[in-house]
Amino acid sequence: MLPIDDTPIVRDGNALILAMDHGLEHGPVDFKAVPEKLDPSTVFETATHDAVTCMAVQKGIAEGYYPSYEDDVNLLVKLNGTSNLWMGEPDSSVNCSVEYAAEIGADAVGFTLYGGSNNEVEMAEEFREIHEAAREYDLPVVMWSYPRGQGVKNDTKPSTISYASRLALELGADIAKVKYPGSRDAMAHAVKSAGDMKVVMSGGSKKDDLQFLSSVEAVIDAGANGLAVGRNVWQRQDPSRILDALEKVIYEGETADAALGE
Amino acid sequence: MLPIDDTPIVRDGNALILAMDHGLEHGPVDFKAVPEKLDPSTVFETATHDAVTCMAVQKGIAEGYYPSYEDDVNLLVKLNGTSNLWMGEPDSSVNCSVEYAAEIGADAVGFTLYGGSNNEVEMAEEFREIHEAAREYDLPVVMWSYPRGQGVKNDTKPSTISYASRLALELGADIAKVKYPGSRDAMAHAVKSAGDMKVVMSGGSKKDDLQFLSSVEAVIDAGANGLAVGRNVWQRQDPSRILDALEKVIYEGETADAALGE
Amino acid sequence: MLPIDDTPIVRDGNALILAMDHGLEHGPVDFKAVPEKLDPSTVFETATHDAVTCMAVQKGIAEGYYPSYEDDVNLLVKLNGTSNLWMGEPDSSVNCSVEYAAEIGADAVGFTLYGGSNNEVEMAEEFREIHEAAREYDLPVVMWSYPRGQGVKNDTKPSTISYASRLALELGADIAKVKYPGSRDAMAHAVKSAGDMKVVMSGGSKKDDLQFLSSVEAVIDAGANGLAVGRNVWQRQDPSRILDALEKVIYEGETADAALGE
Amino acid sequence: MLPIDDTPIVRDGNALILAMDHGLEHGPVDFKAVPEKLDPSTVFETATHDAVTCMAVQKGIAEGYYPSYEDDVNLLVKLNGTSNLWMGEPDSSVNCSVEYAAEIGADAVGFTLYGGSNNEVEMAEEFREIHEAAREYDLPVVMWSYPRGQGVKNDTKPSTISYASRLALELGADIAKVKYPGSRDAMAHAVKSAGDMKVVMSGGSKKDDLQFLSSVEAVIDAGANGLAVGRNVWQRQDPSRILDALEKVIYEGETADAALGE
Amino acid sequence: MLPIDDTPIVRDGNALILAMDHGLEHGPVDFKAVPEKLDPSTVFETATHDAVTCMAVQKGIAEGYYPSYEDDVNLLVKLNGTSNLWMGEPDSSVNCSVEYAAEIGADAVGFTLYGGSNNEVEMAEEFREIHEAAREYDLPVVMWSYPRGQGVKNDTKPSTISYASRLALELGADIAKVKYPGSRDAMAHAVKSAGDMKVVMSGGSKKDDLQFLSSVEAVIDAGANGLAVGRNVWQRQDPSRILDALEKVIYEGETADAALGE
Repeated sequence: MLPIDDTPIVRDGNALILAMDHGLEHGPVDFKAVPEKLDPSTVFETATHDAVTCMAVQKGIAEGYYPSYEDDVNLLVKLNGTSNLWMGEPDSSVNCSVEYAAEIGADAVGFTLYGGSNNEVEMAEEFREIHEAAREYDLPVVMWSYPRGQGVKNDTKPSTISYASRLALELGADIAKVKYPGSRDAMAHAVKSAGDMKVVMSGGSKKDDLQFLSSVEAVIDAGANGLAVGRNVWQRQDPSRILDALEKVIYEGETADAALGE
Repeated sequence: MLPIDDTPIVRDGNALILAMDHGLEHGPVDFKAVPEKLDPSTVFETATHDAVTCMAVQKGIAEGYYPSYEDDVNLLVKLNGTSNLWMGEPDSSVNCSVEYAAEIGADAVGFTLYGGSNNEVEMAEEFREIHEAAREYDLPVVMWSYPRGQGVKNDTKPSTISYASRLALELGADIAKVKYPGSRDAMAHAVKSAGDMKVVMSGGSKKDDLQFLSSVEAVIDAGANGLAVGRNVWQRQDPSRILDALEKVIYEGETADAALGE
Repeated sequence: MLPIDDTPIVRDGNALILAMDHGLEHGPVDFKAVPEKLDPSTVFETATHDAVTCMAVQKGIAEGYYPSYEDDVNLLVKLNGTSNLWMGEPDSSVNCSVEYAAEIGADAVGFTLYGGSNNEVEMAEEFREIHEAAREYDLPVVMWSYPRGQGVKNDTKPSTISYASRLALELGADIAKVKYPGSRDAMAHAVKSAGDMKVVMSGGSKKDDLQFLSSVEAVIDAGANGLAVGRNVWQRQDPSRILDALEKVIYEGETADAALGE
Repeated sequence: MLPIDDTPIVRDGNALILAMDHGLEHGPVDFKAVPEKLDPSTVFETATHDAVTCMAVQKGIAEGYYPSYEDDVNLLVKLNGTSNLWMGEPDSSVNCSVEYAAEIGADAVGFTLYGGSNNEVEMAEEFREIHEAAREYDLPVVMWSYPRGQGVKNDTKPSTISYASRLALELGADIAKVKYPGSRDAMAHAVKSAGDMKVVMSGGSKKDDLQFLSSVEAVIDAGANGLAVGRNVWQRQDPSRILDALEKVIYEGETADAALGE
Repeated sequence: MLPIDDTPIVRDGNALILAMDHGLEHGPVDFKAVPEKLDPSTVFETATHDAVTCMAVQKGIAEGYYPSYEDDVNLLVKLNGTSNLWMGEPDSSVNCSVEYAAEIGADAVGFTLYGGSNNEVEMAEEFREIHEAAREYDLPVVMWSYPRGQGVKNDTKPSTISYASRLALELGADIAKVKYPGSRDAMAHAVKSAGDMKVVMSGGSKKDDLQFLSSVEAVIDAGANGLAVGRNVWQRQDPSRILDALEKVIYEGETADAALGE
């Protein structure tokens, strides 16, 4: 963890990371209801919203589409990831080097660590290399800290999420992305476990507006620093409406109700 | 994915890759009916046809035969591949470095990824290295994107093929070579899943002229960019006749019937 | 083993290493009774006590918090470590390079070796690389020498602890951190097995003051060179009180009773 | 495959490789009847015969004995090889780098590939590195192409041997050493499968003069380029007598009968 | 194998290597009867005897104690070795690089190869790297050639020991250290299998003076070049008495009886 408040991926101390690596991680199924979003341009357009501090994509999407958006969007290159065709213990191939991410304009890099997987040791060592290379390029490092695999029975219970955020701190991440542990208090503990490091919640599968914003409100209220979100934004009819509301909750401290104008 | 319309392996936005790596992948059996084709020169001769945008071979064939054809044929060096004596989970040894491929005159490189294999993670990491090296040499990268192995029950069902083309886009390929998913609509979805990246169909085992050309017609009609073909060309009596027809279907938008002059 | 009496991590020939890598190795459970210690600053404050010759933390804690304490605390970066979510044979990922440890101000480095684990060979080879790199940076190397795994039935029996300290000597460590083998005589043998290399006792889980100090007294009396301690210091209400007592036992040769003023 | 007719290991387009790596591959048993041949000098003496285009040995034999024979013998350093104490799937450790082989005077290098072994992928990748390094040193590469292991039921059936010679061509070898597939016609097919690459037969265990020379005659008649032989030469009473005969069969096109003067 | 008669580790063509890596390989048990020998200085003192051509230790012992003996003792750094807590197939971690061994004053390096172990291939490849690096530093290479593991039923039968010495020759060692195969004739065969390379006998566990010296006499008589010995020297009351006798047997060709003055 280094101070990252002055980097482009943070706004007023918080962050909203718009992620679209679902084509790799989940495959076509996530686009079934919104086939037009198979075109990455559509999500880059959404990412130009002021609420979004950066867009997280894999290397191929970055090199293909970012050149048209580099003035309007900050780029986080997700460095690892694996298809859900994978049947082995949770693992994630390193698909992009830090050097190449920097070359194609990355403002930050992301990395998934599956603590508790039989591949945890190998993944943590890959993280070391990426972390130290990122320091040379002054790129903030976001860890998708997702305990999963043989050693993890329940991947969203409070102690698991607190362990997840702590792992990210101990290993050197600048921001941890963790799942919601079910309550505001559990999230507060996960934030406390992360010391001075920033913690953002993972958006997860699509929910209705109020339910989703309420969880974000709880997360911000618990001291966390925002959200990394995909489906709950770009699977919506009107992504900018939910981004308007998220902007109010994340950066202006409004309640979910107020933000929705209800 | 980078823009590759100006590279030698593309003609009017489309491509016809003539492949002859069957001696490695399948062994002598593919040459049983056409033993004269064991001599790679015969297929290089075929590759001088204007319809062919490049010829795909393994390193050994490239260094041995390409010097005689470098003025008339564009070379794609297939960088990995494995014999069918291999009994393990689908895998492919990296038989040639990008550096060496460039040295022997490659205009493009090719790489097989078996998504869903227990070797997917390792293969994707090999792809990363090859992709980033290819960028340094300005060589387009074609991915043979073939989901196969423990995680894949049906390797040609529509969702698998759409996942295959998406994997290629996300990981940085410039062209994805995928199998035919059984219908024009499924192919159209696979093309859409690939965003702006080009998709070509894999030729597969030998079919009769009309059946084969009709599938190519469907593929072009679905928005794909051509074909990577081996047996359906060089196992034929008269390869130039089918290449004449393919030229009409792929680059001039003719129907299979019209192209065959029927 | 090189002479290290003149390095900052030794005082009058002995050492007291205050460790706080429990967030990684054990997770939130170690902080249950002392949640305020989730903030690493609180333990760095404790480490400013004169009794402490260095503080041992993982890379992330070091880069985040050490800049505020570099004038008052000596830093040992623990280079490997793994979460207790890990279900495999004892292993430890290398989370920090020697180069990066030096860059963020390390005065020494630490490394865990699980002799007897099925990963012993791999870990010993990682130790080789770290040891030789540390020699280039003139950084003392502390080995957490913990026999554990398939080859170890009882990890604190005397012969195991003597083997542990000998392993550290043979492989090149400057200080071995070993568990208490149950008696002063067994500790004396472990010290003798280490030749001229320093040996410190591992603090272990929290005990009452007298019991804890008595074991330290026995260890010093056995010829060992101090203590590497975490929970028995920072899990206490008043860490400086126990550090005052440890200072007397470790550096001034007082008895536990005398040091506690009882 | 590059043109190698002008290199020292070829004579009039053909080659006779005298191999003595049996001490590694088979152990003392091969020397039981000829214990004096445990002294490698005796075989180097034999290799000075004009019929021999190069002698194939492992690194240790090369660095110890070649200095006395470098004016009279061409050296092929066999880069991999394993003892027959090995119980795993067929594999071969890389015992010498191309760089070191060149340094000690190699005129060519050799490498075993066990196609069909569960180690095929790893071995082929080792071959890639060796092949590309050999190109930098202008050293011809001979592949001992021996399908063996889980994927191979019969390692000398015609289709296996044709696959073996084709593998060598596809992967970039300059000469393939294959076993005799049992008939002249099968050998002719294996030669044809190798395109313009040279193919030599593996000598195998000791046979009587006429039987051995007749197989060589058949091999030459089938279009192959000679022989890599060990036991059938140096296990004989009078190696120069069989070499005289081999010279006639391999380079002068004589029959076995004529060559033996029978 | 290179000529090494002019190197410091050979005297009149023969060698006596005093080994003390038992603290790593066997643990404290070997020091039970002689606890004072846990102090490596005591064995270095013994190594100053003129009969000893070099002392073999692991890296940690070398860097800690050799500086006091560099004028009086020649140093062989044993580069690999593993604790006997290890439960896997025979293996040995590489604990020291050749570069570091040279830096701390090594006159030679040593390496264990377990032929027949499931780790044989990996160990042989580690040996390749060490051998070639040692050539750059002009350091003789001694191979502890110990067939062991799944492929070896009897690790001291004559054919196994002859295979062991041959393996060392083929792979490039300058001296092979092998176990005694039970008879003078079997040793003579093992020596013959090694060609011009030197062979020394491994001392093994402690025996009485005459029995031990008689085996050394037989070994020298068989044409071998000496001894690598640990316990049979430093576990004795008076190591210099046995060294006096060994000097006579190894360098002056005396019988065991004569050397003991009996």
